[in-house]
Amino acid sequence: MDAALSFSRQHSPRFHAELEEFLRIPSVSARSEHDGDTRAAAEWLSGRMTAAGLDSRVFETPGHPVVLGEWRGAGADAPTLLIYGHYDVQPAEPLELWTSPPFEPEVRDGRIYARGSADDKGQLHMHVKALESWLAGAGRLPVNVVVVAEGEEEVGSPNLLPFVEEMADRLACDAVVISDSAMFEEGLPSLLFSLRGLAYLEVRVRTASGDLHSGAYGGAVANPAAALSRMIATLHDDHGRIAIPGFYDAVKEWDSATRDAIRALPFDEDRFRSGVGATDLPGEAGYSTLERLWIRPTCEVNGLLSGYTGQGAKTVLPAEAMAKISFRLVPDQDPARVGRLLEEHLRRVTPAGVTLDITELHGGHPWRADPTGPLFEAAGRALEAAFGARPVLAGEGGSIPIVGDFERVLDAPALLVGFALPGCNMHAPDEWFTVENYDRGIEALVRLYAELGDALRG
Amino acid sequence: MDAALSFSRQHSPRFHAELEEFLRIPSVSARSEHDGDTRAAAEWLSGRMTAAGLDSRVFETPGHPVVLGEWRGAGADAPTLLIYGHYDVQPAEPLELWTSPPFEPEVRDGRIYARGSADDKGQLHMHVKALESWLAGAGRLPVNVVVVAEGEEEVGSPNLLPFVEEMADRLACDAVVISDSAMFEEGLPSLLFSLRGLAYLEVRVRTASGDLHSGAYGGAVANPAAALSRMIATLHDDHGRIAIPGFYDAVKEWDSATRDAIRALPFDEDRFRSGVGATDLPGEAGYSTLERLWIRPTCEVNGLLSGYTGQGAKTVLPAEAMAKISFRLVPDQDPARVGRLLEEHLRRVTPAGVTLDITELHGGHPWRADPTGPLFEAAGRALEAAFGARPVLAGEGGSIPIVGDFERVLDAPALLVGFALPGCNMHAPDEWFTVENYDRGIEALVRLYAELGDALRG
Repeated sequence: MDAALSFSRQHSPRFHAELEEFLRIPSVSARSEHDGDTRAAAEWLSGRMTAAGLDSRVFETPGHPVVLGEWRGAGADAPTLLIYGHYDVQPAEPLELWTSPPFEPEVRDGRIYARGSADDKGQLHMHVKALESWLAGAGRLPVNVVVVAEGEEEVGSPNLLPFVEEMADRLACDAVVISDSAMFEEGLPSLLFSLRGLAYLEVRVRTASGDLHSGAYGGAVANPAAALSRMIATLHDDHGRIAIPGFYDAVKEWDSATRDAIRALPFDEDRFRSGVGATDLPGEAGYSTLERLWIRPTCEVNGLLSGYTGQGAKTVLPAEAMAKISFRLVPDQDPARVGRLLEEHLRRVTPAGVTLDITELHGGHPWRADPTGPLFEAAGRALEAAFGARPVLAGEGGSIPIVGDFERVLDAPALLVGFALPGCNMHAPDEWFTVENYDRGIEALVRLYAELGDALRG
Repeated sequence: MDAALSFSRQHSPRFHAELEEFLRIPSVSARSEHDGDTRAAAEWLSGRMTAAGLDSRVFETPGHPVVLGEWRGAGADAPTLLIYGHYDVQPAEPLELWTSPPFEPEVRDGRIYARGSADDKGQLHMHVKALESWLAGAGRLPVNVVVVAEGEEEVGSPNLLPFVEEMADRLACDAVVISDSAMFEEGLPSLLFSLRGLAYLEVRVRTASGDLHSGAYGGAVANPAAALSRMIATLHDDHGRIAIPGFYDAVKEWDSATRDAIRALPFDEDRFRSGVGATDLPGEAGYSTLERLWIRPTCEVNGLLSGYTGQGAKTVLPAEAMAKISFRLVPDQDPARVGRLLEEHLRRVTPAGVTLDITELHGGHPWRADPTGPLFEAAGRALEAAFGARPVLAGEGGSIPIVGDFERVLDAPALLVGFALPGCNMHAPDEWFTVENYDRGIEALVRLYAELGDALRG
């Protein structure tokens, strides 16, 4: 391992230069005008994997390709790690809010500013460099490795699960390692113990065949925007609890150890509040802010649209109103069942004269790790050695549906170890990643492979 | 009068040709690219007034001009009528929904299809032709007349009230006659006894300084779209009544004669319902559909906007939500007071963590006529003679704020006598006006001037 660590330190300037090369490719998966760039990013990545000593190949999918990189030289006794990441990025708009152009990486005050620096090109690149450090520095890896890098994470990974299912034998592994998240705070490495699931639906109500004049028809024809508002108002009670019958039936209570661990975290609620520009942090009664974020389900209105929304006054009685409504789910809630509960509830509260139409848009299961086994212990040792602090256990309010899919299809536990920092503007202008976490993270990953090689040896 | 009627019949083909000329000018007041056309329509109209025998002049305003036409030859004993109309039209978009182009008038099945045929160029032109029929056919008018034609009615008449106030002496009159509305049904002439007022506000709620990720922040930071929905849900009770404290305080009960007259109208509720494509007609309990439209106030949501409203799923926790909320008012409600009541109410129900901002956009007072005096009697005789049916009294759910302004500034009652028909697509594609109502309407106006000349003689 010393040889690998020493290689990574020696070659650090080249690693940084290479990362900037990667970040310069505008691999925006959501924009078809960037399809060529997205493919270029896949080819570039495959080339770096090959140079690192992996067998790499670009696999076609109906969408953007998947890049595979493999090294199977650790022997049949050694465990196999699947390392997952994504080489696509979010759109960079609004461009005018970037201090430096999103695809021209710039280092300022120890931070690399560029779209994808944190999410997820930077973190994916760290794995490739950690693998290279072992293979070029020590001539081998302490584990067998298969890297799966997709180009559609930012558009919902439509082709990844079919790929994983089809390639399940080749992707067989003892653990799945993912670096696509953040540390709890600077200098405090973190391991994720949970992800929330997601059920995302679109609700449309209609009261007439077309928009009407609010003077000529108002009072006689139902107002869809008012009706939809009344329906949405029934989704929560006065204590911030979700009031859809049956919604909490599948929610498992969390163990007191986890809740104690959450309470012990150095969380500054006031800084959090002022950081988002909120005057108050209401929410479900009886739970702390971090509990509301990590271990409690939510019901959010993500979008509302009806009638006239431009400048000034237009006296329209709209014919239709639309809401995007999503739920973050916790174990053992099922997205399809939650969607059905919402539909049943909304049908019950739909007023006279209003037609309801519901479409399921997106779903993903919640995920929860067992933080007591050898996987977390091994990762804890690697992170502590690299960062000088024992990692904390943290939840994550967001959803990464593929984590549960990997576990289910490959029958292997997932380890989520991320190196971004809170406030790093993932999905926003001025995304950044620190130079220090890039370097320390590579060291942590070099150590992680060794620790997992020992811990998971058959 | 016979000479005037005979002139109007003889010259009917020329009147139609002239109307088409008027309708060909795309005087869309809302679109600055049509400013030249709007001015051209004013000049054209002034020219026709002069040709009809009026003294006409185009007056500049800070916006589109006002066209004045005067004839003061009836003597000091004779009453003076102010005839108000507007020569501007609504935008014609969406153009693809027009059967024939909006500014190329086409007669099909007895209907003149063109933007402005009903609202209001066609009806304004009828007045000019009725005046011409008197002046050219009989050499005089039975009343003194001042015509006020504005070019900004479709953009809220921002410069009309100042014009009327400044010119109040010159516009002094015994009655204001306006033809900018519809008959209750074909063959059934109507006189309006009421207009609803309007209070139009924009409500914005904010919960954070910028949009957030609904996974990373959902549950901890308030959702503005859900909060706004809950606030809107408090605006009505379960019986369709407005639940803002004090809202009904100024509402006067209507006399039973008016309610009886409304009940006696040949109104087919089922046809109305299916005509707008509604499955049901809920509304304020205890009132009929026509009462809900004419003599009861409303609270409508005219627009809703928050978060992501495009295709598919975006997991955003919006920072802001907006609603356009308007009230139709009945005597003696005051728009400014209703706006204040809304604001007070919404501040009371604003949840924790939510910042509220309200802007008043537009207001207008309700109007109610006394249908028992000589004005309505005279108009009734003229309409019955022209259409062969006694006119009915009808309310109007919409608002024409200038009506109340005219009455207040000029201290003269208004008479609203319109000749469009229900379903004539005012403000919509394929606007139409019937050839028959154009011809009969001119006859009715010729008679109306004479009847009013007698009835209002000092």
